[in-house]
Amino acid sequence: MLIIMQTEATQGEISVVVERVERNGLKAHLSQGEERTVIGVVGDGRTIYQDQFLHLPGVDRVIPISRPYKIASREFIPQNSMFPLDGVKIGDRGILLIAGPCSVESRSQLLETAHAVREAGAHALRGGAFKPRTSPYSFQGLGEAGLELLAEAREITGMPIVTEIMAPEHIPLLTQYADVLQVGARNMQNYALLNAVGESQHPVLLKRSMMASVEELMMAAEYILSHGNRRVMICERGIRTFETSTRNTTDINAVPVLKSLTHLPVLLDPSHSTGHWEYVSAIARAGIAAGADGLIVEVHNHPSQAMSDGAQSLKPERFAEMVIQVRAVAEAVGRSLDPIS
Amino acid sequence: MLIIMQTEATQGEISVVVERVERNGLKAHLSQGEERTVIGVVGDGRTIYQDQFLHLPGVDRVIPISRPYKIASREFIPQNSMFPLDGVKIGDRGILLIAGPCSVESRSQLLETAHAVREAGAHALRGGAFKPRTSPYSFQGLGEAGLELLAEAREITGMPIVTEIMAPEHIPLLTQYADVLQVGARNMQNYALLNAVGESQHPVLLKRSMMASVEELMMAAEYILSHGNRRVMICERGIRTFETSTRNTTDINAVPVLKSLTHLPVLLDPSHSTGHWEYVSAIARAGIAAGADGLIVEVHNHPSQAMSDGAQSLKPERFAEMVIQVRAVAEAVGRSLDPIS
Amino acid sequence: MLIIMQTEATQGEISVVVERVERNGLKAHLSQGEERTVIGVVGDGRTIYQDQFLHLPGVDRVIPISRPYKIASREFIPQNSMFPLDGVKIGDRGILLIAGPCSVESRSQLLETAHAVREAGAHALRGGAFKPRTSPYSFQGLGEAGLELLAEAREITGMPIVTEIMAPEHIPLLTQYADVLQVGARNMQNYALLNAVGESQHPVLLKRSMMASVEELMMAAEYILSHGNRRVMICERGIRTFETSTRNTTDINAVPVLKSLTHLPVLLDPSHSTGHWEYVSAIARAGIAAGADGLIVEVHNHPSQAMSDGAQSLKPERFAEMVIQVRAVAEAVGRSLDPIS
Amino acid sequence: MLIIMQTEATQGEISVVVERVERNGLKAHLSQGEERTVIGVVGDGRTIYQDQFLHLPGVDRVIPISRPYKIASREFIPQNSMFPLDGVKIGDRGILLIAGPCSVESRSQLLETAHAVREAGAHALRGGAFKPRTSPYSFQGLGEAGLELLAEAREITGMPIVTEIMAPEHIPLLTQYADVLQVGARNMQNYALLNAVGESQHPVLLKRSMMASVEELMMAAEYILSHGNRRVMICERGIRTFETSTRNTTDINAVPVLKSLTHLPVLLDPSHSTGHWEYVSAIARAGIAAGADGLIVEVHNHPSQAMSDGAQSLKPERFAEMVIQVRAVAEAVGRSLDPIS
Repeated sequence: MLIIMQTEATQGEISVVVERVERNGLKAHLSQGEERTVIGVVGDGRTIYQDQFLHLPGVDRVIPISRPYKIASREFIPQNSMFPLDGVKIGDRGILLIAGPCSVESRSQLLETAHAVREAGAHALRGGAFKPRTSPYSFQGLGEAGLELLAEAREITGMPIVTEIMAPEHIPLLTQYADVLQVGARNMQNYALLNAVGESQHPVLLKRSMMASVEELMMAAEYILSHGNRRVMICERGIRTFETSTRNTTDINAVPVLKSLTHLPVLLDPSHSTGHWEYVSAIARAGIAAGADGLIVEVHNHPSQAMSDGAQSLKPERFAEMVIQVRAVAEAVGRSLDPIS
Repeated sequence: MLIIMQTEATQGEISVVVERVERNGLKAHLSQGEERTVIGVVGDGRTIYQDQFLHLPGVDRVIPISRPYKIASREFIPQNSMFPLDGVKIGDRGILLIAGPCSVESRSQLLETAHAVREAGAHALRGGAFKPRTSPYSFQGLGEAGLELLAEAREITGMPIVTEIMAPEHIPLLTQYADVLQVGARNMQNYALLNAVGESQHPVLLKRSMMASVEELMMAAEYILSHGNRRVMICERGIRTFETSTRNTTDINAVPVLKSLTHLPVLLDPSHSTGHWEYVSAIARAGIAAGADGLIVEVHNHPSQAMSDGAQSLKPERFAEMVIQVRAVAEAVGRSLDPIS
Repeated sequence: MLIIMQTEATQGEISVVVERVERNGLKAHLSQGEERTVIGVVGDGRTIYQDQFLHLPGVDRVIPISRPYKIASREFIPQNSMFPLDGVKIGDRGILLIAGPCSVESRSQLLETAHAVREAGAHALRGGAFKPRTSPYSFQGLGEAGLELLAEAREITGMPIVTEIMAPEHIPLLTQYADVLQVGARNMQNYALLNAVGESQHPVLLKRSMMASVEELMMAAEYILSHGNRRVMICERGIRTFETSTRNTTDINAVPVLKSLTHLPVLLDPSHSTGHWEYVSAIARAGIAAGADGLIVEVHNHPSQAMSDGAQSLKPERFAEMVIQVRAVAEAVGRSLDPIS
Repeated sequence: MLIIMQTEATQGEISVVVERVERNGLKAHLSQGEERTVIGVVGDGRTIYQDQFLHLPGVDRVIPISRPYKIASREFIPQNSMFPLDGVKIGDRGILLIAGPCSVESRSQLLETAHAVREAGAHALRGGAFKPRTSPYSFQGLGEAGLELLAEAREITGMPIVTEIMAPEHIPLLTQYADVLQVGARNMQNYALLNAVGESQHPVLLKRSMMASVEELMMAAEYILSHGNRRVMICERGIRTFETSTRNTTDINAVPVLKSLTHLPVLLDPSHSTGHWEYVSAIARAGIAAGADGLIVEVHNHPSQAMSDGAQSLKPERFAEMVIQVRAVAEAVGRSLDPIS
């Protein structure tokens, strides 16, 4: 941490800041420029409240130097974190494909879709039983009945299940059915939930909020990791910008940025990040080309009858085409869609 | 709802859409232009899933005409919703002033601050006992001990208490201590929480998420209202934009926009919406000038020792100056800071 | 400027950076922390190219400490810059009201509107003769014929004229007719134009681009000031954000921020910053409450017949009401709409 | 165009709107719903000013149905527009690679870089002689001397030249030296400049403004096309968002969106869209995977000595690696870097 003094700060004001730094158990190192003094704080600034210096007279700005997260950072764990799911070692050179409907709607819908995506090459099945919906009047998911259908689909197809968790009290129920707990974008800063999934020690797919910075996403992952749960995947799913021709703006830059900052696997959700099925394949290819470790894609056997996200869901045959294209790009960048032993 | 067909849509495709509209129990009204056909849907489009039409062949776009919220709208309830708090009839021409520290940190901190803001003219006391923090390593609040201090401050100063709720399971505890439950920005789309505070029938202060559109804020209010809880205030607290000279961008436009859309009281939080104490008074004045029904302001007896939000907290004497300025502006726009019998 | 080295930077890498600093005629001051070294650069960093250090091995980040603008800053000129226009000393405690149509469309439209706004209390007349339009098929303004109408309106009403300049080659023509040259939002970073209006020594109204940061706005002002032209007003007119309920988002925070950063007068354009006439008065009041030195407002004698910006133009009678409200708020904050001798 | 009436609109108000539609030479088609009336306007709404209806009593909203651009649209010209440059038929399945320094700084800098990028596989050379810089105190380019160096580089390497134009009066000079005129992001809505390059009939590379929507970018292209100049390439170069971990946010979605909207070639500039050389290759690969027709990349023989954009410039050897990666991805999506006869 650096404390930048105002140009007109007095020696007395500087002394007060230095004293405050030392009272926090850290050391102050003065650098007197022509115009102003900069106070370097030596020690782990993460452990103290940095804004406390802002109200001291003569202080202009406080600049953090160290990153605010630790366990999530590549500085702390240089090697990629890996864990297995359905034969794919997530975090290794394999690419993880998760596919399925937005919501579980019925037995036939789920099973037809599950069979189709499995055949096309998906490794895991997504499907929501508890749905966060903008409107209280919209379909809110089948609840436990949906979980039972997911369990049946897993049994039949062999695919592990990824499903969303919306509240800490659902942990006991959901961990019975889900192989991976998805924390949705709207709950990325629901700290009660992050703590609960951290405690659960269950694999987690953490989606970036549509308005969270990369650093805040890293901090959300840190919440989970700080409970000892290391099986966390993070997922870019589009951010909110001024552009309205797509539902969100895919922050494709976040893929290489996250890969440089963290050892955790980085996935992309091209369905939400575009909002239109026409663009999903192009952005899926782009994500893999940029270095993503996997994709999560919405597929529905009859998108025009979907009860949510129909506009961005692929039909099974288009998903199959997408997989072929993604496979070609994956190979071009030295990755593979096949389970690696 | 309007369904815009593509320029090259066939009669057959149009018929399929019309049939689908009717299967949903609504009526279709065709408008055949030179270039394309527009299908007007007659009936309450809020009750059906509008995206279902997007995947039908020949459909270009679906345009909602009615607003997606109902109970929250001024069309539904034209008169301002009013309810009393500490002698101020919220929603009437009086201005509600809520002030206090970000977090409850200690007895002396809370009581000193409470006395000071009461003397300066505040009507209610804010203070967090459970704190949502970006970092898992930051101070997370005193919990129930903090609530007890708030209760003591209420007893001594007579001010009602506004405090944040972070999880549904805290409802029984918090409703014992809090006069108003605050739903924070990060939880604006935590639907489990919205449903719970709706059920509680307790007064609610709902803060806009930094990433939520005005319409999404209205939908979050609708969640609470749909449970029969009508004592809801909504609060603009700054949105996230590209500008970095302030912590957030105060969406001052949202004040008159919300006042035109809803009968609910509209507050402004100039502390979070600027992030710097230097700008708080200017934006507090602006909020009242633009038509806000109240303010919620962070005040700390020693901001430089605050454990959170020190940079945006006013010292008591500056808060007192702010109240004088706000009072003058309130009177200029025909409002008042005094309790109205 | 501070150069933050990577945690693993070697002594050799540090030496190369120090050498480079000194080759630029500046001094380096090392601050060796536990984790990393920070190099403070002593001297005027504005004169050198700071990114040159980013490619040197071992460098993590470069943090500028001084602001990149000089003449525009309050540190350089602490007192408000003032200059007279129609009896209002711009920059003093008076509030400047500029009003008129978006485009000059006809003699009767301009004169009727001019008379009406003058009577309501406006000090200067706005009106575009050369219009920047998003579509090449839209009305592009009357050109010189429009300027002649503006000159006539000035003669009849006594109001000075504010009109937009779109290209450097128009300077000789426009300076004959206009009392103030307006640089529009879309041209805020048209440097050829900024240099030309700087050279002209004519008063300038510089509008913030809808996606420019406050710092970039200050730099655009610096371009003009660096040519010796000190009669510059800057104007907030709304920024582009994700919110779509209004055309732009009024960055009301920018008003106190700019007032603290610069000695130049700061205006607000509530017509463009909202895009809907219903919200113009509320935001005009908010701007004055927040400390703005003036307003520029679109008024049209028949908005429903306007050839541009009809949706955000006030009718004359509504403008007159707005002036009454703004006058009350101005007085509440110790300002005045009356010319001050 | 659709005109949505308010729920409480009267028959008289509806008649006034219908009359106004007909006075504009168009036809009105009424659709009376349960709650409100929608008036469909039949005819080419692009030719009239749509906002004129907003001020009529009883009108709620006006919704444009047709796109506001014409010549730029794929509806107007379904086939890809193609034109040759250095043996690459731009717009065909070949991928165009433009590379070179941000600014022309010296003979040795330009020639060394030019040779290196040519050898690595670039088809055209970029280099700025007139530079738009945020600060008036920064290096502004070598001007005509820079153009002469570019001409020499062309003669020696055979590569066509792409260079930026900042003002209409530079057209005669620049068209002597440049094979392609680049309109930079800051000038995307400098209409005087768009008209001038349209008139020039010279090939144009039009960069998206960091604040422009896809539709505004299309309208800027329409300005140029409307002068009969059909040799226009458009270029995504990153938009401005809240995210600060990269200089801009690459709007990768814009690539497939633009390819569906327009017949013009679509390029990507991964240097500006990321702002950090570490991420340039990943985003270059992503752009090609998403369907871009080419790339424009900043390369400098000694980035740490660059006078502008050093942080985002690749060293020649890294550019060569990038080309190898891009070639593999191009082939995976059925494209090629080789000139096609």
